[in-house]
Amino acid sequence: MTSFQLSAMEDMVEKFLDAAARGDLTQVSSHLSRVPSLINRTGCSGWTALMLAARNGHYQVAEMLVSLGCDKFSVNASSQTAYDIAKFWGHRHIAGLLSRSEGRRVLPGGEPHLQENYFSRETLDRLSARRTDEVWLEAKQKDPDTVYLLFSNLSPMVSASQEDDDEGHIQLCRLRYEAVKDLLEKPSTVLIFLGMERMKNPSSSQTSEPPVWFAVSTDEDPAELLRRCREATCSFPKSGNRDLLKFSEEDAGVVAQARSVLAWHSRYSFCPTCGSGTRLEQGGYKRSCLNSECRSQQGVHNTCYPRVDPVVIMLVIHPDGNQCLLGRKKVFPAGLFSCLSGFVEPGEAIEEAVRREVEEESGVKVGPVQYVSCQPWPMPSNLMLGCLAAAVSTDIKVDETELEEARWFPRQQVIDSLFRGASSTLIVPPRQTIAHQLIRHWISVNSNL
Amino acid sequence: MTSFQLSAMEDMVEKFLDAAARGDLTQVSSHLSRVPSLINRTGCSGWTALMLAARNGHYQVAEMLVSLGCDKFSVNASSQTAYDIAKFWGHRHIAGLLSRSEGRRVLPGGEPHLQENYFSRETLDRLSARRTDEVWLEAKQKDPDTVYLLFSNLSPMVSASQEDDDEGHIQLCRLRYEAVKDLLEKPSTVLIFLGMERMKNPSSSQTSEPPVWFAVSTDEDPAELLRRCREATCSFPKSGNRDLLKFSEEDAGVVAQARSVLAWHSRYSFCPTCGSGTRLEQGGYKRSCLNSECRSQQGVHNTCYPRVDPVVIMLVIHPDGNQCLLGRKKVFPAGLFSCLSGFVEPGEAIEEAVRREVEEESGVKVGPVQYVSCQPWPMPSNLMLGCLAAAVSTDIKVDETELEEARWFPRQQVIDSLFRGASSTLIVPPRQTIAHQLIRHWISVNSNL
Repeated sequence: MTSFQLSAMEDMVEKFLDAAARGDLTQVSSHLSRVPSLINRTGCSGWTALMLAARNGHYQVAEMLVSLGCDKFSVNASSQTAYDIAKFWGHRHIAGLLSRSEGRRVLPGGEPHLQENYFSRETLDRLSARRTDEVWLEAKQKDPDTVYLLFSNLSPMVSASQEDDDEGHIQLCRLRYEAVKDLLEKPSTVLIFLGMERMKNPSSSQTSEPPVWFAVSTDEDPAELLRRCREATCSFPKSGNRDLLKFSEEDAGVVAQARSVLAWHSRYSFCPTCGSGTRLEQGGYKRSCLNSECRSQQGVHNTCYPRVDPVVIMLVIHPDGNQCLLGRKKVFPAGLFSCLSGFVEPGEAIEEAVRREVEEESGVKVGPVQYVSCQPWPMPSNLMLGCLAAAVSTDIKVDETELEEARWFPRQQVIDSLFRGASSTLIVPPRQTIAHQLIRHWISVNSNL
Repeated sequence: MTSFQLSAMEDMVEKFLDAAARGDLTQVSSHLSRVPSLINRTGCSGWTALMLAARNGHYQVAEMLVSLGCDKFSVNASSQTAYDIAKFWGHRHIAGLLSRSEGRRVLPGGEPHLQENYFSRETLDRLSARRTDEVWLEAKQKDPDTVYLLFSNLSPMVSASQEDDDEGHIQLCRLRYEAVKDLLEKPSTVLIFLGMERMKNPSSSQTSEPPVWFAVSTDEDPAELLRRCREATCSFPKSGNRDLLKFSEEDAGVVAQARSVLAWHSRYSFCPTCGSGTRLEQGGYKRSCLNSECRSQQGVHNTCYPRVDPVVIMLVIHPDGNQCLLGRKKVFPAGLFSCLSGFVEPGEAIEEAVRREVEEESGVKVGPVQYVSCQPWPMPSNLMLGCLAAAVSTDIKVDETELEEARWFPRQQVIDSLFRGASSTLIVPPRQTIAHQLIRHWISVNSNL
């Protein structure tokens, strides 16, 4: 190769990488059709086209490069893959793309995972169309493969985790039809169809359908229920919310669904429109009024369906970009501070609810708001909408009916608390909470790469 | 200046612009501290550092450049300002930053506005802390400046817009205490405190508080109410949802709040926990059970508070990036297709609800999901969560109980329908709907700049 050719090639690599960085799909594609070997070429600091597209959030370019077989696992001078870069810069779309495909290299420190909030994993396919199919539901109830979760006073029956485990993990007791069939006949029992296990390998030709799951709620004496199940390690946790954070991700997702629906049944036994009794329908997802004259028998409305309450939860960032606002309620353990939060009101957008709640609770005014991720929170049935919020004022005036204290915390103190163990002055909420994940998100997108 | 100096300067400009494009705050800042005049220098196609930061979503760099006084209004070779670029690439945070500051140049075609969904504007400060202050609320009711909105059967009293207007705009009738005081004494009247007008100029030392607003719902004969108000042009619209889309942005925001709360009162007169009657409290934001033995008298729960139903609404994008999935229900006018949508279920994250609903209704499987914006929809009280969803399969199998038809529409056909008037084969929903805004968002972020 002559030096002229070399220089022309360098020039082309530079143009190609620049097109990828700018998200110019046409240019990237035209370069590759002429010189396919460009695809894995690197520029400054070992960055590939895929890394540049991942950094700047150009999904289509990344997708094309992947589909044309680029090396997804090459690393730059800082040992980062394109996946690391996409995740770091908050381009979850692209991180998703890069984490999905098969045959991925196992990275140091384990598999790459997109941030997923606790209570969010859907292990079951809800099969909502089956809820009206009473024949099918009845047949599935008696199926010996069917899994039943037993609830007493909104607590699921659990056992201590089988594995060596000093973190106090617990797991759901999976019961069979024989163990619950007496309970199912009692009129006070509430039965919820949760869904069908997702096939691990949908392309394989399985001979039978995967098992379906139900939740059963009973007002029988819990001690008696435990005696019947004859497992010494089983229990119904009594410490409420805290114990619900001890499940695996898979169990947590099912608990979120079952407990939210059961909590609705426990509070909504009567028709709010006319005060009459109601009957449970559609696999536990509807309660219809028994009064045939009731207005709820006509038209579309929400009284018959389970309630989900949207809640905004936000990490407020100081105008200097280097501090965040955290608050504590009187009931919190000493040192614990968390994100501010509040219910979305009727007729209110998420972004406005964030501004209103922050100003009401702390006196701080908020400008731009950015949605980050959400989390179902089954206590009883909230949908937590996690946001970053940019403060446009800094003076704090706490609403003492809501908070005991709110304070700006320097970034370094938050990092110390997250990664170096809790200090006595700041404990952040546990990793299962979206508050924790919002704080981590801020720390990571706000770092220098 | 020698040619050597010129070349060194060019080199520095290039490095400076590159740092801005990469979001390297330290580099940008260090360049500017050495050579402040770099701030407005342009590179290829007239792009400034601010434009590059805006394009790639680097908020902190954009913020620093603005705070150091860069020219926000210079345009590149395509006549775009940094604001245009930020908006186009979906970096709303930065578009917000650039649209906020004072003294902005009026762009051709009017002021720049961030996309704002109909029903989302908050004209009033809800002052939720005042809801428990009965003395203050009572005094405000009698204040001659106080504004009352009258509702009959969930329709607000309106008049045709005063301005020359052939689009059929309507406006809320603003009544005074004298006009409603008889109604306020009737036990069946529902009174909702909506909030206080926001001060136009908060820094001015006003002598009195701005007016507060209430909504009044009555079961009196509507014809009689209209006679009393002695305005020939007043009416209570009967065509429901359609008329609610004819307000100004300001009025629409207030209607969203008032109508959602009133719809809750109209359906939730009885305690769902015990079936007893309830009484209205806290300025209309709470209904407490009259039965002192009821479980709802203890602990924290949601039965006493207005309901808001989260709904996902999503534009599904074909894997080729060039088509979107739209569906129609049987009741839609001929030719109208819209985004798919559905209620978020208990224990379900937004992203999972999007995947479930799309697969249930159309058979199409969805991978990554991206939140775009939301919209309160007061029919009766939904919170529409607008998302883009990337399809990972393309075969359509419609659930005929939900949809009449679903189809992939090529991008160009959607553009034609949006900008060149409706074709007979595709009519998209009106601009007041978040479905319309999602479609526009896709068209704009997906174009070549």
